[in-house]
Amino acid sequence: MPEPLEQMQREMAAAKIDAAILLKPHNVFYFGGYASVCSGVVLFPDQEPVFTILWLDLPEAKEQCTIDKMATYVFPRESLTGRMAQVAAKKKANIQRIGVEKDFMQIRHLEVLQKHFPQAEYVHISPMIDRLRAIKSDEEVAKIRKSAAIADQAMAAALAAVQPGVSELEVAAEAEYVMSKAGSLRPAFSTFVASGPRTLLAHPIASPKLIEPGEPVVIDLGAIWQGYSSDLCRTAFAGEPSREQADYLRLVVEAQAACAGAVKEGATAHQPWQAAHDVFQAHGVARYLPDDIGYGVGLRQSEFYPILEKDSDTVLKANMVVALMQTTAFDKKVGGLRVEDTFLVSKEGAERLTSHQQELY
Amino acid sequence: MPEPLEQMQREMAAAKIDAAILLKPHNVFYFGGYASVCSGVVLFPDQEPVFTILWLDLPEAKEQCTIDKMATYVFPRESLTGRMAQVAAKKKANIQRIGVEKDFMQIRHLEVLQKHFPQAEYVHISPMIDRLRAIKSDEEVAKIRKSAAIADQAMAAALAAVQPGVSELEVAAEAEYVMSKAGSLRPAFSTFVASGPRTLLAHPIASPKLIEPGEPVVIDLGAIWQGYSSDLCRTAFAGEPSREQADYLRLVVEAQAACAGAVKEGATAHQPWQAAHDVFQAHGVARYLPDDIGYGVGLRQSEFYPILEKDSDTVLKANMVVALMQTTAFDKKVGGLRVEDTFLVSKEGAERLTSHQQELY
Repeated sequence: MPEPLEQMQREMAAAKIDAAILLKPHNVFYFGGYASVCSGVVLFPDQEPVFTILWLDLPEAKEQCTIDKMATYVFPRESLTGRMAQVAAKKKANIQRIGVEKDFMQIRHLEVLQKHFPQAEYVHISPMIDRLRAIKSDEEVAKIRKSAAIADQAMAAALAAVQPGVSELEVAAEAEYVMSKAGSLRPAFSTFVASGPRTLLAHPIASPKLIEPGEPVVIDLGAIWQGYSSDLCRTAFAGEPSREQADYLRLVVEAQAACAGAVKEGATAHQPWQAAHDVFQAHGVARYLPDDIGYGVGLRQSEFYPILEKDSDTVLKANMVVALMQTTAFDKKVGGLRVEDTFLVSKEGAERLTSHQQELY
Repeated sequence: MPEPLEQMQREMAAAKIDAAILLKPHNVFYFGGYASVCSGVVLFPDQEPVFTILWLDLPEAKEQCTIDKMATYVFPRESLTGRMAQVAAKKKANIQRIGVEKDFMQIRHLEVLQKHFPQAEYVHISPMIDRLRAIKSDEEVAKIRKSAAIADQAMAAALAAVQPGVSELEVAAEAEYVMSKAGSLRPAFSTFVASGPRTLLAHPIASPKLIEPGEPVVIDLGAIWQGYSSDLCRTAFAGEPSREQADYLRLVVEAQAACAGAVKEGATAHQPWQAAHDVFQAHGVARYLPDDIGYGVGLRQSEFYPILEKDSDTVLKANMVVALMQTTAFDKKVGGLRVEDTFLVSKEGAERLTSHQQELY
């Protein structure tokens, strides 16, 4: 049995969870090495897990999934959650505490479970899995490395497309084309291309807006390689930046370097935030630094653990992978200039996995 | 106030729903003309709705959203759902029945609402909205028409890329590139490219598999134009199909034509299924026709209403848009050959909005 599954079972036993119903595709993939649009995993603390899938997709699951026991359901006569509840009830008597992903499971799925197990207590199990997922195996790191290399290529293509009169969407199209051709199954997230005032938005998904002369253009993208994400953000200009803009960009790059310099095994997740904050403060712009500046990277480009943020006492460990650094709230005149890379945490410090160089103007 | 909102308010009043908390981006977009990653709409039967959004994304919302009243929240100090609950409580005393999207809302969001309204009853409100969304305005139809035209172009590009030795992912890359360059904000769904045995899967998202000589290749894709989807599926061959395969493909095309011929205002959603079934039965392969063969098309490529399926008594109405027809379970030797187009329902019948021609070999 693979190591993460064994550890999960130990933690479920310790938390007295009789069964867990996992539907989040990233978690299904994490434990099964495969996920389809309609699949789930039933975990037990003391038994083999059961992979559950729409009957039509079973042949692919049999080839790719690492879980031996499988159950299928026939839609629309049966539902995935209903079938998983049956599996749990059949495998285990007297189920009292059921682990569910409260940050993913829909109310209608909970209601299906409640029909099968009206007396059960439902426990939010995602944080347990998030902590496991945070520590990558060497194989996972290798996949993220490859994903980062694809992101580097995509960034070069996107930057080459930036010029006045081109739409943000066209810039994203170039990046996504390169990623797909390189074997990325999909973008790790909706590619951000933000020009001019849109750089100040938190979620500037590429839009039909045309890039205007001199505007800053923020590009944030990630690839997926064999399930694993990368995250890379660069800021370009459609022309020459103002002196103030160039200074700001240097500040962000300097803060990112300081931040990465504070990342290593044993540091708290607050320390990198503090390092970035010191740089911002030295330049008199501490108010522009958000409280959260980095997130884990793995099956998601933005995982829920660890989060690098102010006052966090989370301890960083070797083989975590994180993206640094998130910055959004800048001055309106300057724009929300951003830089982000994917880093591997080790005993010695942080190794940058994305290698594209930010131009400093 | 736009017509769908007025009708929604009448239906909420009739169902005695005091407030609705909408988080599903398609529903948020439907009532607000805009949705971000972190936004929602609070609806009341007797008051103006309130659009709620992460404070950083407010400037874009102010430009694009058609709802006047706006509330913002500051993350991570506040949550979207918590803020929406506050808005509802402030606007309306004695809230007893709350509409929520049980097929979208996560348990953790429900738990937030339950803290604010511990005595309230939570009512599944999605079907009410799905029925409203099913009838398109002329403006919506125009957007779907444009989306369909982009899908046509993308299909031509994808088919041109099909040849032995090319990966499914590369075929999808060509299609998605064309869609982005044409202004599609994203694919309407994960592009399916299925070759050989993968044509039998229900959800054959394009994979790294290389296309082999002679294999059937099913391509299913859709664009998004100003929020609105299209859906188009074609079957190609990387070489010459067998006689049996060519015959099957003709059968599917014939069944699709019969099916579309049975679509018109006033028909039940069962009748098109029956028409397709008659063709399958005449060829002795009725067992291969699924019970559900078509879905509404709009903000989603596959809406939850109407569903064209066996025994449905849903009545089709003018200005519905549907995709026909879904077929997956074929013989292993032949493969899961499929054809699908987007149609507009009118008094006279069904008008095909996608215009790419399926090659018949």
